[in-house]
Amino acid sequence: MVSGPSGSGKTTLCRRLADEKEAHYSISCTTRLPRDGEIDGKDYHFLSRKDFQSHIDAGALLEHAKVHENHYGTLKSEVVNQLAVGTDVVMDIDVQGANQVRSCSDAQIKTALIDLFVMPPSKEELRSRLNGRGTDAEEVIALRMRNALEEMEHWPEYSYRLISETREKDYLKFKSLMLAERLRVSRLK
Amino acid sequence: MVSGPSGSGKTTLCRRLADEKEAHYSISCTTRLPRDGEIDGKDYHFLSRKDFQSHIDAGALLEHAKVHENHYGTLKSEVVNQLAVGTDVVMDIDVQGANQVRSCSDAQIKTALIDLFVMPPSKEELRSRLNGRGTDAEEVIALRMRNALEEMEHWPEYSYRLISETREKDYLKFKSLMLAERLRVSRLK
Repeated sequence: MVSGPSGSGKTTLCRRLADEKEAHYSISCTTRLPRDGEIDGKDYHFLSRKDFQSHIDAGALLEHAKVHENHYGTLKSEVVNQLAVGTDVVMDIDVQGANQVRSCSDAQIKTALIDLFVMPPSKEELRSRLNGRGTDAEEVIALRMRNALEEMEHWPEYSYRLISETREKDYLKFKSLMLAERLRVSRLK
Repeated sequence: MVSGPSGSGKTTLCRRLADEKEAHYSISCTTRLPRDGEIDGKDYHFLSRKDFQSHIDAGALLEHAKVHENHYGTLKSEVVNQLAVGTDVVMDIDVQGANQVRSCSDAQIKTALIDLFVMPPSKEELRSRLNGRGTDAEEVIALRMRNALEEMEHWPEYSYRLISETREKDYLKFKSLMLAERLRVSRLK
Protein backbone atom coordinates (compact mmCIF):
# COMPACT_ATOMS: atom_id res chain seq x y z
CA MET A 1 0.00 0.00 0.00
CA VAL A 2 1.30 3.40 -0.92
CA SER A 3 -0.26 6.53 0.57
CA GLY A 4 0.66 10.18 0.50
CA PRO A 5 -0.86 13.54 -0.34
CA SER A 6 -1.48 14.82 -3.86
CA GLY A 7 1.84 16.06 -5.11
CA SER A 8 3.86 13.39 -3.33
CA GLY A 9 4.46 11.47 -6.56
CA LYS A 10 3.07 8.20 -5.21
CA THR A 11 0.96 7.41 -8.27
CA THR A 12 3.96 7.79 -10.59
CA LEU A 13 5.95 5.40 -8.37
CA CYS A 14 3.19 2.78 -8.34
CA ARG A 15 2.57 3.00 -12.09
CA ARG A 16 6.27 2.63 -12.87
CA LEU A 17 6.61 -0.42 -10.64
CA ALA A 18 3.75 -2.00 -12.58
CA ASP A 19 5.17 -0.91 -15.95
CA GLU A 20 8.44 -2.64 -15.04
CA LYS A 21 6.46 -5.81 -14.21
CA GLU A 22 7.59 -5.77 -10.58
CA ALA A 23 4.00 -5.75 -9.37
CA HIS A 24 0.37 -5.70 -10.45
CA TYR A 25 -1.25 -2.27 -10.12
CA SER A 26 -4.49 -2.70 -8.23
CA ILE A 27 -7.36 -1.11 -10.18
CA SER A 28 -10.01 0.50 -7.99
CA CYS A 29 -13.71 0.34 -8.73
CA THR A 30 -16.00 3.34 -8.72
CA THR A 31 -19.59 4.36 -9.35
CA ARG A 32 -18.59 7.63 -10.97
CA LEU A 33 -18.88 7.91 -14.72
CA PRO A 34 -15.77 7.51 -16.88
CA ARG A 35 -14.13 10.76 -17.92
CA ASP A 36 -12.97 11.32 -21.47
CA GLY A 37 -10.22 8.85 -22.32
CA GLU A 38 -10.68 6.69 -19.22
CA ILE A 39 -10.86 2.98 -19.95
CA ASP A 40 -12.89 0.46 -17.95
CA GLY A 41 -10.58 -2.12 -16.37
CA LYS A 42 -7.53 0.09 -16.85
CA ASP A 43 -8.21 3.35 -15.05
CA TYR A 44 -11.05 1.99 -12.94
CA HIS A 45 -13.58 -0.81 -12.88
CA PHE A 46 -16.64 1.33 -13.57
CA LEU A 47 -19.64 -0.11 -11.72
CA SER A 48 -23.30 0.77 -11.35
CA ARG A 49 -24.48 1.75 -7.86
CA LYS A 50 -26.39 -1.49 -7.69
CA ASP A 51 -23.35 -3.62 -8.53
CA PHE A 52 -21.18 -1.65 -6.11
CA GLN A 53 -23.72 -2.20 -3.33
CA SER A 54 -23.84 -5.94 -4.13
CA HIS A 55 -20.06 -6.12 -3.69
CA ILE A 56 -20.33 -4.33 -0.33
CA ASP A 57 -23.11 -6.69 0.79
CA ALA A 58 -21.08 -9.73 -0.28
CA GLY A 59 -18.02 -8.49 1.65
CA ALA A 60 -16.12 -8.46 -1.63
CA LEU A 61 -14.52 -5.06 -1.05
CA LEU A 62 -11.21 -4.76 0.74
CA GLU A 63 -11.89 -1.09 1.40
CA HIS A 64 -14.38 1.48 0.19
CA ALA A 65 -15.39 5.09 0.74
CA LYS A 66 -17.90 7.64 -0.52
CA VAL A 67 -16.43 10.86 -1.92
CA HIS A 68 -18.77 13.60 -3.26
CA GLU A 69 -21.70 11.21 -3.85
CA ASN A 70 -19.49 8.69 -5.67
CA HIS A 71 -18.31 5.37 -4.28
CA TYR A 72 -14.75 4.14 -4.61
CA GLY A 73 -13.29 0.84 -3.48
CA THR A 74 -10.93 -2.08 -4.02
CA LEU A 75 -12.18 -5.54 -4.88
CA LYS A 76 -10.62 -8.20 -2.66
CA SER A 77 -10.33 -10.43 -5.74
CA GLU A 78 -8.22 -7.77 -7.50
CA VAL A 79 -5.55 -8.35 -4.85
CA VAL A 80 -6.00 -11.95 -3.74
CA ASN A 81 -6.05 -13.46 -7.24
CA GLN A 82 -2.64 -11.93 -7.95
CA LEU A 83 -1.10 -12.93 -4.62
CA ALA A 84 -2.37 -16.47 -5.17
CA VAL A 85 -0.18 -16.81 -8.28
CA GLY A 86 2.82 -15.21 -6.57
CA THR A 87 2.49 -11.74 -8.11
CA ASP A 88 3.07 -8.74 -5.84
CA VAL A 89 0.34 -6.11 -5.86
CA VAL A 90 0.78 -2.36 -5.46
CA MET A 91 -2.13 -0.27 -4.18
CA ASP A 92 -2.29 3.51 -4.49
CA ILE A 93 -4.56 4.23 -1.56
CA ASP A 94 -5.53 7.03 0.83
CA VAL A 95 -5.06 7.00 4.59
CA GLN A 96 -8.64 5.89 5.33
CA GLY A 97 -8.47 3.07 2.76
CA ALA A 98 -5.14 1.93 4.18
CA ASN A 99 -6.71 1.68 7.63
CA GLN A 100 -9.46 -0.55 6.28
CA VAL A 101 -6.96 -2.81 4.52
CA ARG A 102 -4.91 -3.09 7.73
CA SER A 103 -7.95 -4.40 9.59
CA CYS A 104 -8.61 -7.08 6.93
CA SER A 105 -8.57 -10.60 8.38
CA ASP A 106 -7.51 -12.41 5.17
CA ALA A 107 -4.29 -14.27 6.03
CA GLN A 108 -2.83 -13.95 2.53
CA ILE A 109 -3.28 -10.18 2.57
CA LYS A 110 -2.00 -9.80 6.13
CA THR A 111 1.18 -11.72 5.25
CA ALA A 112 1.77 -9.71 2.08
CA LEU A 113 1.03 -6.29 3.56
CA ILE A 114 3.68 -3.55 3.51
CA ASP A 115 2.74 0.11 3.87
CA LEU A 116 4.66 3.13 2.68
CA PHE A 117 3.90 6.81 3.10
CA VAL A 118 5.36 9.14 0.47
CA MET A 119 5.71 12.81 1.29
CA PRO A 120 7.13 15.94 -0.32
CA PRO A 121 10.44 17.29 0.99
CA SER A 122 9.00 20.59 2.30
CA LYS A 123 5.86 22.69 2.54
CA GLU A 124 7.24 25.03 -0.11
CA GLU A 125 7.81 22.18 -2.55
CA LEU A 126 4.34 20.78 -1.81
CA ARG A 127 2.74 24.18 -2.45
CA SER A 128 4.60 24.48 -5.74
CA ARG A 129 3.52 20.97 -6.82
CA LEU A 130 -0.12 21.61 -5.86
CA ASN A 131 -0.09 24.87 -7.77
CA GLY A 132 -0.25 22.79 -10.92
CA ARG A 133 -0.19 24.88 -14.08
CA GLY A 134 -0.48 28.02 -11.99
CA THR A 135 -3.97 28.78 -13.29
CA ASP A 136 -5.93 27.69 -10.21
CA ALA A 137 -7.51 30.12 -7.78
CA GLU A 138 -5.70 30.93 -4.54
CA GLU A 139 -8.50 29.37 -2.46
CA VAL A 140 -8.41 26.12 -4.42
CA ILE A 141 -4.68 25.75 -3.80
CA ALA A 142 -5.15 26.66 -0.13
CA LEU A 143 -7.77 23.90 0.23
CA ARG A 144 -5.51 21.33 -1.48
CA MET A 145 -2.71 22.42 0.82
CA ARG A 146 -4.85 21.97 3.95
CA ASN A 147 -5.96 18.52 2.80
CA ALA A 148 -2.39 17.48 2.02
CA LEU A 149 -1.07 18.69 5.37
CA GLU A 150 -3.87 16.88 7.18
CA GLU A 151 -3.14 13.64 5.29
CA MET A 152 0.57 13.98 6.04
CA GLU A 153 -0.04 13.82 9.77
CA HIS A 154 -0.65 10.09 9.32
CA TRP A 155 2.87 9.05 8.26
CA PRO A 156 3.74 7.56 11.67
CA GLU A 157 1.00 4.92 11.14
CA TYR A 158 3.03 3.43 8.28
CA SER A 159 6.00 1.02 8.36
CA TYR A 160 8.05 2.98 5.84
CA ARG A 161 8.31 6.62 4.89
CA LEU A 162 9.87 8.04 1.75
CA ILE A 163 10.63 11.75 1.52
CA SER A 164 10.44 12.58 -2.15
CA GLU A 165 13.58 13.97 -3.81
CA THR A 166 13.91 13.30 -7.54
CA ARG A 167 11.89 10.79 -9.58
CA GLU A 168 14.89 8.54 -10.08
CA LYS A 169 16.04 8.57 -6.46
CA ASP A 170 12.50 8.00 -5.23
CA TYR A 171 11.97 5.08 -7.57
CA LEU A 172 15.30 3.48 -6.60
CA LYS A 173 14.24 3.55 -2.93
CA PHE A 174 10.74 2.35 -3.73
CA LYS A 175 12.00 -0.57 -5.78
CA SER A 176 14.57 -1.36 -3.08
CA LEU A 177 11.72 -1.70 -0.65
CA MET A 178 10.05 -4.29 -2.90
CA LEU A 179 13.29 -6.24 -3.38
CA ALA A 180 14.13 -6.16 0.34
CA GLU A 181 10.69 -7.26 1.48
CA ARG A 182 10.94 -10.30 -0.78
CA LEU A 183 13.82 -11.47 1.44
CA ARG A 184 11.75 -11.26 4.62
CA VAL A 185 11.90 -14.51 6.56
CA SER A 186 8.43 -14.17 8.11
CA ARG A 187 7.03 -14.36 4.59
CA LEU A 188 9.35 -17.22 3.49
CA LYS A 189 8.69 -19.53 6.43
CA MET B 1 24.47 -8.30 10.96
CA VAL B 2 25.19 -10.69 8.14
CA SER B 3 25.59 -14.40 8.82
CA GLY B 4 25.90 -17.43 6.60
CA PRO B 5 28.16 -20.44 6.09
CA SER B 6 31.56 -20.28 4.42
CA GLY B 7 30.91 -20.18 0.71
CA SER B 8 27.76 -18.08 1.01
CA GLY B 9 29.56 -14.97 -0.20
CA LYS B 10 28.60 -12.89 2.84
CA THR B 11 32.05 -11.40 3.38
CA THR B 12 32.24 -10.18 -0.21
CA LEU B 13 28.83 -8.51 0.20
CA CYS B 14 29.85 -6.78 3.44
CA ARG B 15 33.20 -5.62 2.09
CA ARG B 16 31.62 -4.17 -1.05
CA LEU B 17 29.01 -2.26 0.94
CA ALA B 18 31.84 -0.69 2.93
CA ASP B 19 33.92 -0.02 -0.20
CA GLU B 20 30.95 1.86 -1.68
CA LYS B 21 30.76 3.93 1.53
CA GLU B 22 27.25 2.69 2.32
CA ALA B 23 28.37 1.42 5.72
CA HIS B 24 31.32 1.04 8.05
CA TYR B 25 32.71 -2.50 8.12
CA SER B 26 32.99 -3.56 11.75
CA ILE B 27 36.52 -4.82 12.45
CA SER B 28 36.65 -7.71 14.93
CA CYS B 29 39.32 -8.04 17.57
CA THR B 30 41.27 -11.24 18.19
CA THR B 31 44.05 -12.67 20.32
CA ARG B 32 45.46 -14.74 17.49
CA LEU B 33 48.66 -13.54 15.83
CA PRO B 34 48.49 -11.66 12.53
CA ARG B 35 49.05 -13.81 9.45
CA ASP B 36 51.31 -12.64 6.65
CA GLY B 37 49.88 -9.51 5.08
CA GLU B 38 47.24 -8.91 7.74
CA ILE B 39 47.13 -5.35 9.01
CA ASP B 40 46.19 -4.33 12.56
CA GLY B 41 43.05 -2.17 12.49
CA LYS B 42 42.14 -3.26 8.98
CA ASP B 43 41.80 -7.04 9.06
CA TYR B 44 41.48 -7.27 12.85
CA HIS B 45 42.28 -5.35 15.97
CA PHE B 46 45.05 -7.64 17.23
CA LEU B 47 44.99 -7.73 21.03
CA SER B 48 47.01 -9.45 23.75
CA ARG B 49 45.13 -11.96 25.91
CA LYS B 50 45.40 -9.55 28.80
CA ASP B 51 43.85 -6.66 26.86
CA PHE B 52 41.13 -8.92 25.48
CA GLN B 53 40.27 -10.08 29.00
CA SER B 54 40.17 -6.46 30.23
CA HIS B 55 37.61 -5.66 27.50
CA ILE B 56 35.50 -8.64 28.58
CA ASP B 57 35.70 -7.58 32.24
CA ALA B 58 34.74 -4.00 31.33
CA GLY B 59 31.69 -5.21 29.36
CA ALA B 60 33.20 -3.53 26.28
CA LEU B 61 32.55 -6.47 23.93
CA LEU B 62 29.30 -6.73 22.02
CA GLU B 63 29.95 -10.42 21.43
CA HIS B 64 32.89 -12.76 21.81
CA ALA B 65 33.82 -16.41 21.43
CA LYS B 66 36.79 -18.73 21.79
CA VAL B 67 37.73 -20.72 18.69
CA HIS B 68 40.73 -23.14 18.81
CA GLU B 69 42.37 -21.41 21.81
CA ASN B 70 42.00 -17.96 20.22
CA HIS B 71 39.52 -15.31 21.27
CA TYR B 72 37.47 -13.30 18.79
CA GLY B 73 35.03 -10.51 19.49
CA THR B 74 33.48 -7.18 18.54
CA LEU B 75 34.13 -4.01 20.51
CA LYS B 76 30.92 -2.19 21.36
CA SER B 77 32.70 1.09 20.59
CA GLU B 78 33.45 -0.14 17.05
CA VAL B 79 29.71 -0.11 16.39
CA VAL B 80 28.31 2.58 18.70
CA ASN B 81 30.79 5.30 17.71
CA GLN B 82 29.70 4.96 14.08
CA LEU B 83 25.98 4.84 14.82
CA ALA B 84 26.38 7.97 16.96
CA VAL B 85 27.51 9.96 13.92
CA GLY B 86 24.78 8.48 11.70
CA THR B 87 26.93 5.94 9.87
CA ASP B 88 25.47 2.49 9.29
CA VAL B 89 27.61 -0.43 10.38
CA VAL B 90 27.84 -3.84 8.73
CA MET B 91 28.95 -6.84 10.79
CA ASP B 92 30.10 -10.12 9.28
CA ILE B 93 29.24 -12.42 12.15
CA ASP B 94 28.51 -16.08 12.92
CA VAL B 95 25.27 -17.47 14.31
CA GLN B 96 26.49 -17.53 17.92
CA GLY B 97 27.82 -13.95 17.73
CA ALA B 98 24.53 -12.79 16.19
CA ASN B 99 22.66 -14.27 19.14
CA GLN B 100 24.84 -12.33 21.59
CA VAL B 101 24.29 -9.07 19.68
CA ARG B 102 20.51 -9.66 19.67
CA SER B 103 20.52 -9.90 23.45
CA CYS B 104 22.42 -6.58 23.81
CA SER B 105 20.50 -4.02 25.85
CA ASP B 106 22.03 -0.89 24.24
CA ALA B 107 19.11 1.12 22.83
CA GLN B 108 21.10 2.54 19.91
CA ILE B 109 22.15 -0.94 18.79
CA LYS B 110 18.68 -2.42 19.29
CA THR B 111 17.14 0.32 17.12
CA ALA B 112 19.73 -0.08 14.38
CA LEU B 113 19.72 -3.88 14.30
CA ILE B 114 18.83 -5.73 11.10
CA ASP B 115 19.87 -9.34 10.56
CA LEU B 116 20.36 -11.14 7.28
CA PHE B 117 21.25 -14.76 6.60
CA VAL B 118 22.99 -15.49 3.30
CA MET B 119 22.92 -19.02 1.95
CA PRO B 120 24.06 -20.84 -1.17
CA PRO B 121 21.42 -21.88 -3.74
CA SER B 122 21.94 -25.65 -3.30
CA LYS B 123 24.00 -28.28 -1.52
CA GLU B 124 25.80 -29.03 -4.79
CA GLU B 125 26.80 -25.39 -5.25
CA LEU B 126 27.90 -25.19 -1.61
CA ARG B 127 30.05 -28.30 -1.97
CA SER B 128 31.64 -26.88 -5.09
CA ARG B 129 32.37 -23.53 -3.36
CA LEU B 130 33.82 -25.26 -0.29
CA ASN B 131 36.02 -27.39 -2.51
CA GLY B 132 38.17 -24.32 -3.06
CA ARG B 133 41.04 -24.92 -5.41
CA GLY B 134 40.25 -28.61 -5.48
CA THR B 135 43.43 -29.50 -3.59
CA ASP B 136 41.90 -30.18 -0.17
CA ALA B 137 41.43 -33.65 1.25
CA GLU B 138 38.01 -35.28 1.01
CA GLU B 139 37.64 -35.33 4.82
CA VAL B 140 38.44 -31.60 5.12
CA ILE B 141 35.71 -30.75 2.62
CA ALA B 142 33.28 -33.13 4.34
CA LEU B 143 33.91 -31.36 7.67
CA ARG B 144 33.40 -27.91 6.13
CA MET B 145 30.21 -29.21 4.55
CA ARG B 146 28.87 -30.52 7.88
CA ASN B 147 29.68 -27.20 9.58
CA ALA B 148 28.02 -25.20 6.82
CA LEU B 149 24.87 -27.34 6.85
CA GLU B 150 24.65 -27.05 10.63
CA GLU B 151 25.02 -23.25 10.46
CA MET B 152 22.37 -23.06 7.74
CA GLU B 153 19.74 -24.53 10.03
CA HIS B 154 19.66 -21.16 11.78
CA TRP B 155 18.26 -19.06 8.92
CA PRO B 156 14.74 -18.89 10.41
CA GLU B 157 16.16 -16.92 13.38
CA TYR B 158 16.94 -14.00 11.04
CA SER B 159 14.65 -11.24 9.70
CA TYR B 160 15.88 -11.56 6.12
CA ARG B 161 17.27 -14.37 4.02
CA LEU B 162 19.17 -14.04 0.77
CA ILE B 163 19.71 -17.09 -1.41
CA SER B 164 22.89 -16.44 -3.31
CA GLU B 165 22.71 -16.34 -7.12
CA THR B 166 25.31 -14.18 -8.85
CA ARG B 167 27.55 -11.57 -7.21
CA GLU B 168 25.73 -8.70 -8.91
CA LYS B 169 22.21 -9.94 -8.15
CA ASP B 170 23.16 -10.68 -4.54
CA TYR B 171 24.69 -7.25 -4.07
CA LEU B 172 21.66 -5.49 -5.59
CA LYS B 173 19.40 -7.24 -3.09
CA PHE B 174 21.78 -6.61 -0.22
CA LYS B 175 22.05 -2.91 -1.00
CA SER B 176 18.27 -2.72 -1.46
CA LEU B 177 17.90 -4.00 2.06
CA MET B 178 20.08 -1.17 3.35
CA LEU B 179 18.18 1.47 1.35
CA ALA B 180 14.80 0.10 2.39
CA GLU B 181 15.63 -0.11 6.08
CA ARG B 182 16.63 3.56 6.04
CA LEU B 183 12.96 4.32 5.27
CA ARG B 184 11.67 2.43 8.30
CA VAL B 185 9.35 4.58 10.38
CA SER B 186 10.19 2.91 13.71
CA ARG B 187 13.74 4.19 13.24
CA LEU B 188 12.68 7.68 12.04
CA LYS B 189 10.26 8.42 14.85
